[in-house]
Amino acid sequence: MGSAASPPRTLDAASPPTASQEDLKRVAAHRAVAMVGSNMTLGLGTGSTAAHALDRLGDLLRSGALRGVAGVPTSLKTEAHAARAGIPMLALADAAEIHLSIDGADEVDPDLNLVKGRGGSLLREKMIEGAGARFVVIVDESKLVPRLGCTGAVPVEVVPFGSAYTLGLVRKVFDGVPGFSARLRTVVSKAGDGKEELFVTDNGNHIVEMFFDDGILGDLRAISDSLLRITGVVEHGMFLGMATSVIVAKKDGTVAVLTKK
Amino acid sequence: MGSAASPPRTLDAASPPTASQEDLKRVAAHRAVAMVGSNMTLGLGTGSTAAHALDRLGDLLRSGALRGVAGVPTSLKTEAHAARAGIPMLALADAAEIHLSIDGADEVDPDLNLVKGRGGSLLREKMIEGAGARFVVIVDESKLVPRLGCTGAVPVEVVPFGSAYTLGLVRKVFDGVPGFSARLRTVVSKAGDGKEELFVTDNGNHIVEMFFDDGILGDLRAISDSLLRITGVVEHGMFLGMATSVIVAKKDGTVAVLTKK
Repeated sequence: MGSAASPPRTLDAASPPTASQEDLKRVAAHRAVAMVGSNMTLGLGTGSTAAHALDRLGDLLRSGALRGVAGVPTSLKTEAHAARAGIPMLALADAAEIHLSIDGADEVDPDLNLVKGRGGSLLREKMIEGAGARFVVIVDESKLVPRLGCTGAVPVEVVPFGSAYTLGLVRKVFDGVPGFSARLRTVVSKAGDGKEELFVTDNGNHIVEMFFDDGILGDLRAISDSLLRITGVVEHGMFLGMATSVIVAKKDGTVAVLTKK
Repeated sequence: MGSAASPPRTLDAASPPTASQEDLKRVAAHRAVAMVGSNMTLGLGTGSTAAHALDRLGDLLRSGALRGVAGVPTSLKTEAHAARAGIPMLALADAAEIHLSIDGADEVDPDLNLVKGRGGSLLREKMIEGAGARFVVIVDESKLVPRLGCTGAVPVEVVPFGSAYTLGLVRKVFDGVPGFSARLRTVVSKAGDGKEELFVTDNGNHIVEMFFDDGILGDLRAISDSLLRITGVVEHGMFLGMATSVIVAKKDGTVAVLTKK
């Protein structure tokens, strides 16, 4: 027993959620699914909260309480989950109309602007949720923030060619902003050698993660345009003016529905 | 002579180039390469005119007239050509600075705004040519137009996911514009069955081709922002305010150098 004790492992955001957090997500998800009517085409979100909505939709379709519903999945993961839940699916180009999209969010600000895409599927989510008439966001109250970027990364999807150069151009947009930093997202290599490699999205792109000590200050739409004008930037994870309502499950067991002013 | 004479046929850009057109391209390319000094890092363009510049650079490096030059290629095709010409190459992220880029263009308007990318490599060209201190465009005088979009397609690079849906959003930007149309670029399948399939860029994306009977009217920067705000649009082929000079080889044998006002 001569070897030194290994250091304590840090509990990071990937820790398994407690039952009560999971309950809150489920409550919000079920409330959103209550807005679904028969024969609607739905945008199906990605992530742990949206997963509860998929399960609920599957239950209601099986029981016959809902009929003729079709979903447009926002990720490969959601496509697989929806298939297991028995939800009929359509490709985006084949959906004549998307009546309602339901998805979680990483952050929600007081104007219902969102940060999404920390899971890596922001592009398809933005396309599909932007295509619909209504976009209902489901969160527990820990996701409500005074300013976007307060609680973690704001992702920017970039083409792989020249992504290190594009990272430099993203940094220039926030030149002189105190507490700003950015990096390319990495993951541990699947080769099992413990090395890090660049994260690749469903669309074959890389992700720049932007961090702000105190959230993003300034005109979000102007910042959005500055990012989109960078050659090499495909999309970013700020969803501005897209959510039509936000369903918030609170720790005290109540549910609040925030709607666009 | 009762019937009216039919109008003269317009020679379009797809006609096979005459020897003299090729000569004009070479003249412009050589004039641009005369601006290259030893130890410069260059952005190397793509297309038939830029190819003459690559050959000339190779000659000058072999003869020792130029030394220490490195090139950042804007396409896989240019990378292969530059390798054959003996030009040392750098990746974009490894180039500390790009001193000068040299490339052709499909169209040049009176403000030196360009249409580029009919060949399909607009994204890498825009990244590299936008990264440099100077961007010299080389054309024969047939490329000078009163308005962008007069002589053929203006390309827009879009992600493959939902590209038919994104095409619809591009059409909406020009809703009600007379003489506007758009389609996804296709090529004859390599399978040899004579079928058409969607064109795929170096970056794995699709191309929307926009056509304008009489060129693009209106504020080009506002139109650019409208296109870039579409989720699914990666970049477009309007290069606005990027060219620092344009070398024009004329049919009468003279060369004009246009510079930014």
